[in-house]
Amino acid sequence: MDIMRDNYCVIMGGGIGSRFWPFSRENRPKQFLDFFGVGRSLIQQTFDRFNQVIPTENIYIATNKNYAALVKEQLPEITDSQILLEPTRRNTAPCIAYAAYRIQALNPNANIAVTPADHLILHEQNFLMNIQKGLNFVAKFPSLLTLGVRPNRPETGYGYIQTEEGGTDNIQKVKAFTEKPDYELAKVFFESGEFFWNSGIFIWNVQTILDAFRMYLPEIANRLDQGLDLYNTPGEAAFIEEHYPVFQNISIDYGIMEKANNVYMLMADFGWSDLGTWGSLYDISEKDEDQNAVLKCKSLFIESENNLLTLPEKKLAVIQGLNDYIIAESDEILLICKKADEQRIKQFVADIAMKYGEKYL
Amino acid sequence: MDIMRDNYCVIMGGGIGSRFWPFSRENRPKQFLDFFGVGRSLIQQTFDRFNQVIPTENIYIATNKNYAALVKEQLPEITDSQILLEPTRRNTAPCIAYAAYRIQALNPNANIAVTPADHLILHEQNFLMNIQKGLNFVAKFPSLLTLGVRPNRPETGYGYIQTEEGGTDNIQKVKAFTEKPDYELAKVFFESGEFFWNSGIFIWNVQTILDAFRMYLPEIANRLDQGLDLYNTPGEAAFIEEHYPVFQNISIDYGIMEKANNVYMLMADFGWSDLGTWGSLYDISEKDEDQNAVLKCKSLFIESENNLLTLPEKKLAVIQGLNDYIIAESDEILLICKKADEQRIKQFVADIAMKYGEKYL
Repeated sequence: MDIMRDNYCVIMGGGIGSRFWPFSRENRPKQFLDFFGVGRSLIQQTFDRFNQVIPTENIYIATNKNYAALVKEQLPEITDSQILLEPTRRNTAPCIAYAAYRIQALNPNANIAVTPADHLILHEQNFLMNIQKGLNFVAKFPSLLTLGVRPNRPETGYGYIQTEEGGTDNIQKVKAFTEKPDYELAKVFFESGEFFWNSGIFIWNVQTILDAFRMYLPEIANRLDQGLDLYNTPGEAAFIEEHYPVFQNISIDYGIMEKANNVYMLMADFGWSDLGTWGSLYDISEKDEDQNAVLKCKSLFIESENNLLTLPEKKLAVIQGLNDYIIAESDEILLICKKADEQRIKQFVADIAMKYGEKYL
Repeated sequence: MDIMRDNYCVIMGGGIGSRFWPFSRENRPKQFLDFFGVGRSLIQQTFDRFNQVIPTENIYIATNKNYAALVKEQLPEITDSQILLEPTRRNTAPCIAYAAYRIQALNPNANIAVTPADHLILHEQNFLMNIQKGLNFVAKFPSLLTLGVRPNRPETGYGYIQTEEGGTDNIQKVKAFTEKPDYELAKVFFESGEFFWNSGIFIWNVQTILDAFRMYLPEIANRLDQGLDLYNTPGEAAFIEEHYPVFQNISIDYGIMEKANNVYMLMADFGWSDLGTWGSLYDISEKDEDQNAVLKCKSLFIESENNLLTLPEKKLAVIQGLNDYIIAESDEILLICKKADEQRIKQFVADIAMKYGEKYL
């Protein structure tokens, strides 16, 4: 059997991306948007990327059931059975567990790459080379592998990974995970050269991750073990519908990665951003000589620096006397907000919903 | 003959309004726009207003020939013969002269109110009462009457009129016209109570204005006198096409009003703005408690004061941390500009045309 046949991918695309409002909206979250005007949405780009090393039929999309139609529309290449529908939002651990049980029912030798749908990868070939290296590694060693990215700045928006000495071929045992640090700590991490960004992209053999669930999140594993006869049958949907909402809301990092002792990190450098905030988008965007980043639209800046501007294509903006702002328009909504205050956007959106109704969420 | 039959109106609607970019564009200047979302453009509002005291068939529109189709579309009430087409842009004096010659050919007793198409009048009944008072005055006294507006602030964007002592019923002889003053002088004017804004709305009998042209702008009068047999005939268009481009580019204020000795001012107070700039629009707009003025769209302001916001209807803007800006979108163009720098908009537009082409003019 071709080793490729054992390689799977699970694309997690159920989030709301509320920090990217007004681009990202409840009924059309950011993974379904063509952020950069390249003609493909983020989830489509993620699919395209993995499809170069994973057979189409082995790519699964885990998403909230509200987005099933969007997934089918944007990814006509996959069948309905490749869409894993989450009845409720329950963070990454339940989602990953469900996908693992389904895939095990199909192929108990599966090696699985798990990835968010909405990340930006600039150096695709380097990325794919690392994914293959990781898939090969987990096929041989029963490990939980995470992709660590070498930091290029003291970013406070990411979690960090510290590794132990030793290791080969850029794969090292993980010593500790650290939640998002404050700026001073992030600076220490960055300058030490010993810390890596936690990309949230994982690779493991299906048996390794199922063992980890049984060990560290037994409430989830015990419930899902009851459905072993149902995965990949017509009975699966009702079974998931019943059990999924009961799962605790917990991330794979917190539930398993920070606890297991077979966690490894593959050190990589493929131009990565989680596109978690407008600021992260600004950081990775090309800028003009005044450090203005413009996506999609035409623009003229006068006495304006360090802005992120994104309007629908064909639009033109003339901006004078503005520094350090986000100017973003999408779907009839214009946001003008200081970059430094972007963490408050969620509150602005809540205020808008109070004033004008939930259709603006 | 009904005295009403002698009353005429000339609406001057040939300007570009370039200071109101991006609302006002070369192919759709501001007089043709529904600035306030009331359902009628400025020229339509001007027509509606005068049509309450002037018979429809006595209302003439003077405009650049490029805008003939727009006038016909927006004012289907009038006939083609009521549209006076200027072959080239030549300021107000040639336009007013042409209209006077045409109207004289139809009615040598005509009393004419001449008005820009794009001014805002808030107190319509008061305005119309003054127009009628003025028409009655000029029918009896061979005078050049201008409407003077009592200032409510030391505005530097308007010309001022000083009148002589005496006069009756709010009509006084004009002592002097003053061009746009600097702020210190405007403050003196405002506080003295003796100066009035020059509204650019004039009333006179057709013979009085023709006499004034023959006296003060004989080059224009001599040429137009050659066509006395042609006005209101099929030969008029060719005659105007030949002579109009030769006229000097001169305003009625500079060419006649500042020189003639039969100039009177009707003092009025009808909530007037020439809508000459974004700032003048801001001044007359309703504002929220933070002095933000919003036209048409929905909005949420956070830590933002003294802004003028106008987006197309149905749009929503969320604006945080912005003070004293113009935020204006029209026709796929977004302008964000400090209110204090609005006089530079013309230059921004020129720069845009250099960068992206003349379609943005």
